[in-house]
Amino acid sequence: MIPHDPLPLAQALIRCPSVTPQDHGAQTLLATTLSSLGFAIEHQQFGPVSNLIARCGTTSPHFAFAGHTDVVPPGEGWHHPPFAAVIDEGQLFGRGAVDMKGAIAAFITAVAARQATAPSHGSISLLITGDEEGPAVDGTTRILDHLAATSALPDLCLVGEPTCRATLGDTVKIGRRGSLTAHITLTGTQGHVAYPHLADNPLHRLLPALKALRTRTLDTGNDWFEPSSLQITTIDVGNPATNVIPGTAQASLNIRFNNEHSGETLTAWIRETLSRFAPRSTCDIRVSGEPFLTEPGPLTTLLTHAVERITGITPSLDTGGGTSDARFIARYCPVAEFGLVGRSMHRTDEAVPIADLRALTEIYGAILDRVFA
Amino acid sequence: MIPHDPLPLAQALIRCPSVTPQDHGAQTLLATTLSSLGFAIEHQQFGPVSNLIARCGTTSPHFAFAGHTDVVPPGEGWHHPPFAAVIDEGQLFGRGAVDMKGAIAAFITAVAARQATAPSHGSISLLITGDEEGPAVDGTTRILDHLAATSALPDLCLVGEPTCRATLGDTVKIGRRGSLTAHITLTGTQGHVAYPHLADNPLHRLLPALKALRTRTLDTGNDWFEPSSLQITTIDVGNPATNVIPGTAQASLNIRFNNEHSGETLTAWIRETLSRFAPRSTCDIRVSGEPFLTEPGPLTTLLTHAVERITGITPSLDTGGGTSDARFIARYCPVAEFGLVGRSMHRTDEAVPIADLRALTEIYGAILDRVFA
Ligand SMILES: [Zn+2]
Ligand SMILES: [Zn+2]
Repeated sequence: MIPHDPLPLAQALIRCPSVTPQDHGAQTLLATTLSSLGFAIEHQQFGPVSNLIARCGTTSPHFAFAGHTDVVPPGEGWHHPPFAAVIDEGQLFGRGAVDMKGAIAAFITAVAARQATAPSHGSISLLITGDEEGPAVDGTTRILDHLAATSALPDLCLVGEPTCRATLGDTVKIGRRGSLTAHITLTGTQGHVAYPHLADNPLHRLLPALKALRTRTLDTGNDWFEPSSLQITTIDVGNPATNVIPGTAQASLNIRFNNEHSGETLTAWIRETLSRFAPRSTCDIRVSGEPFLTEPGPLTTLLTHAVERITGITPSLDTGGGTSDARFIARYCPVAEFGLVGRSMHRTDEAVPIADLRALTEIYGAILDRVFA
Repeated sequence: MIPHDPLPLAQALIRCPSVTPQDHGAQTLLATTLSSLGFAIEHQQFGPVSNLIARCGTTSPHFAFAGHTDVVPPGEGWHHPPFAAVIDEGQLFGRGAVDMKGAIAAFITAVAARQATAPSHGSISLLITGDEEGPAVDGTTRILDHLAATSALPDLCLVGEPTCRATLGDTVKIGRRGSLTAHITLTGTQGHVAYPHLADNPLHRLLPALKALRTRTLDTGNDWFEPSSLQITTIDVGNPATNVIPGTAQASLNIRFNNEHSGETLTAWIRETLSRFAPRSTCDIRVSGEPFLTEPGPLTTLLTHAVERITGITPSLDTGGGTSDARFIARYCPVAEFGLVGRSMHRTDEAVPIADLRALTEIYGAILDRVFA
């Protein structure tokens, strides 16, 4: 099956209800399609997670497209069934339409169109995981480990996440902030509120500690990043007795940080602050992603020109929003992200305009033209 | 039954397992004993709560002894059964031994001794509630309402709560701090931590508000009171998602305040502070007791001299610790508190030295001597 239009392939993918970590045939469908285009297929299964590596060609330049077939749960209240791929008023509705089965269908269609007209030199890979929306432990990092071990790492990578804000072409992501989560537990000494000198209220230590953490200006941003931001996400004591000073208190915070910091420097700062204000505390810190930045250069120029050629829009080069699997890829090669308009992602009635799906196919085609020019 | 020694009456009272609001015969036992001493008895029942008013005489001065027959639950782990009133190594063990069945037995025994030797002028009341350890709604306040309505309010009142710290005679309570509890709920706007500008983190408003409340020096105490104290007793959000800014947050605080403040002034201050830092907040404030102070004068002199005469110790006049029913009585007449050593109250193995029980009987007798001199 050689796709000439991204719509049928996008529909077929949406009809696989591949809520993480389930696959329900999505990757088999991709494997069949890519095989017919001459790609060599490797399936990698880790527990319940399916990953797919497909490569066509063996020479340089090696260009990779990274993405995921898994989707977040649909939730309730859809106007069209979330896995029916209904077309209504020029839009394709379904979970994954923009994040990111639509983009996968567009890229494969662009590859098919290119192979029909111009025999390629270099090589193209698709790195497809079923664990991007989940813990992201058995997904892209495993694929990269495998590519590194087999000397099959790409030279350049494009991630097909939805990057545009309002109009297709308005945004290319060239970096992402890092993310750190800290779970803090303070121990005090329980007591009666009438005898505070016999107790040690952990909240009265936690609050100054959190203030010190919250009110530091981490940075004021830089050329490519917004300022880093710390949010206290919860504080919990669960003391129902208003005449009792509690014995313990817990809090969690999350930092989205730019490349002025690393997980390590922030971890050290949090631990130092806690030790100053709350010596009887423990803190469990997880850095789920370091920041990455692909500084403007050949890859971003190539993407910008391709987007401009098809849409007439000059995309802004952005580093906002959440984390993506590009943070893992950035350790190995230049990586940037370009995909559909993200507004409906992770929401009820996720949908993509069919015109956008076709325009994205053209943009991906223009990117391939430039990579292999 | 005319008691000549407080021990049998204290034992009989402890053997009634009168955990609030249950009575299990405790007040019937008192009524029988006081009847035999010539007291007129009124029972007042409010729902499950029993109260007892006993009065002997109709003339002035009218001296009242206030107390409670209810006890807190015994809990586990006692070395002697909590309602068996076992005597072991000179101590009487049992729930209520010091708080405050022992004191009731001592006072009645003192009254009996006095009536046997010197016919009284004036009058003596016992105001006994079964709801001091519970909500204190259907107890002493109801008794006082009734006394006010029947023009039977006392001229002076002694509350028999355990007041001593280490040695019988070391402390008379001449006041208590007030208590205020505030439950605060803040509303913000939920959102993703990666987009803090689209959210409004209620914790980031709550923390400065709590800081303003917590760090104000309410006062530095005065001649009779320790400084007022504010404790944050709980903060609860219950947000398990570390990538989500929560939509609401709750906190509770308790203030133990001296007579530099009133429930009203503190309530106004809390509401004003919250409106400044957290306009989208609601606050439920309950003043469970205003502070009271019986300034040193005839009543305290009388108590001090009686304690000195029997124990040789000059008691300190104190206002520390939790609230007591004296806060209600203080609205009507001078009131002070004197009773046993409180160390074992509300604990496992609550116990009173029999020698203390007898010495307290003598002290109460000396107080009656002076009141009716
Ligand atoms: Zn995605
Ligand atoms: Zn008591």
